[in-house]
Amino acid sequence: MRISQLSAASGVPIPTIKYYLREGLLPPGEQTAATRAEYGESHLRRLRLIRALLEVGRLPIAAIRKVIAAVEDESLGMHEVLGTAHYAIAPAVESHQEDEDWRRARAEADRLITDLGWRVHPEAPTRVELAQAILTLDQLGMPATGEALRPYAEAAVNLVVEHEIGTIPLDGPREAAVEALVVGTVVHGRVLDVMRRLAHESISARFFGVSEE
Amino acid sequence: MRISQLSAASGVPIPTIKYYLREGLLPPGEQTAATRAEYGESHLRRLRLIRALLEVGRLPIAAIRKVIAAVEDESLGMHEVLGTAHYAIAPAVESHQEDEDWRRARAEADRLITDLGWRVHPEAPTRVELAQAILTLDQLGMPATGEALRPYAEAAVNLVVEHEIGTIPLDGPREAAVEALVVGTVVHGRVLDVMRRLAHESISARFFGVSEE
Repeated sequence: MRISQLSAASGVPIPTIKYYLREGLLPPGEQTAATRAEYGESHLRRLRLIRALLEVGRLPIAAIRKVIAAVEDESLGMHEVLGTAHYAIAPAVESHQEDEDWRRARAEADRLITDLGWRVHPEAPTRVELAQAILTLDQLGMPATGEALRPYAEAAVNLVVEHEIGTIPLDGPREAAVEALVVGTVVHGRVLDVMRRLAHESISARFFGVSEE
Repeated sequence: MRISQLSAASGVPIPTIKYYLREGLLPPGEQTAATRAEYGESHLRRLRLIRALLEVGRLPIAAIRKVIAAVEDESLGMHEVLGTAHYAIAPAVESHQEDEDWRRARAEADRLITDLGWRVHPEAPTRVELAQAILTLDQLGMPATGEALRPYAEAAVNLVVEHEIGTIPLDGPREAAVEALVVGTVVHGRVLDVMRRLAHESISARFFGVSEE
């Protein structure tokens, strides 16, 4: 299809498509004449990936470039590509205190992951994020043991197993599967986060006795 | 306590405390001499609130100022303060297409909230966020009906009811309850998000047959 048709099919304006082409986020079309290029299904899929990472994942362009490089690198397995996406969507881990409290929180995080039988890289920044949350809860006098956080782990793993991994189309081209995996991770993360805030609003309305509108 | 003791007790360096005082995030101490001020428990609690919003919630200072203004405004009920915190932690809602697909996604989001019996303000930006996620899933050919997303809603509401609302100390001073509510919302949101990414890594390692390290 022509760039105008690609624009119509994807809902992405032509100048934006040209920007993605210049930035190397979108591979060039097949040149059929000096001023004419043909685009295909893979371009349409790639545009959806970019828009999802940008609008739903709210990733900066630099992070999107890293994710796309991983998607395109056929020497990487699915697990490595997903890892790249996870590291791109994870917030930067701030510097933190290196004291006894921190070491205890970090040990608690590692212990919980071990107790759950989860396979997580020893250097994964998510371990630091979890430890930071545990430390904050502890400092606030809120339940912060692995046991207290276990229901969050169990809810998360159930959703991923039952509603996410199964939707990946593994029988098609590698790129389609990888893109579905990456976008699914980003969008479902957003779904869960927004559901939690919606639930909080609703429960708080009841709990604090706000009258029906 | 003196500012040096406040620093030691909170782990926040003195120059940072002075910065929060100048920015009005931390109320001034009680002046006991020309160059000497006394700080109390409420300052310690407030510092923990600021650090949690900053380090775990990753809110910008302007958003933290809004949350603290709501915490301090005694004319606001708990529900309104929580609402302010939610709007501060929510990502800015991007402009979106205003076409038939968008209206269908928005109707699906509203229908799910109604079916769940949730009490959510008709103008809440979270409704737009949910609609945006539904639209993206739909465009990617992934399950995007209210029914498909219901498990996310149910997991979220269970966690909030069973592990969050109950931990709010409602028998103490209003400010302590409000601060616990706000910080709990932010930190537990982070916990759930990081658990989901940890679960994804672990499940992906098994699913794609990465060998044990």
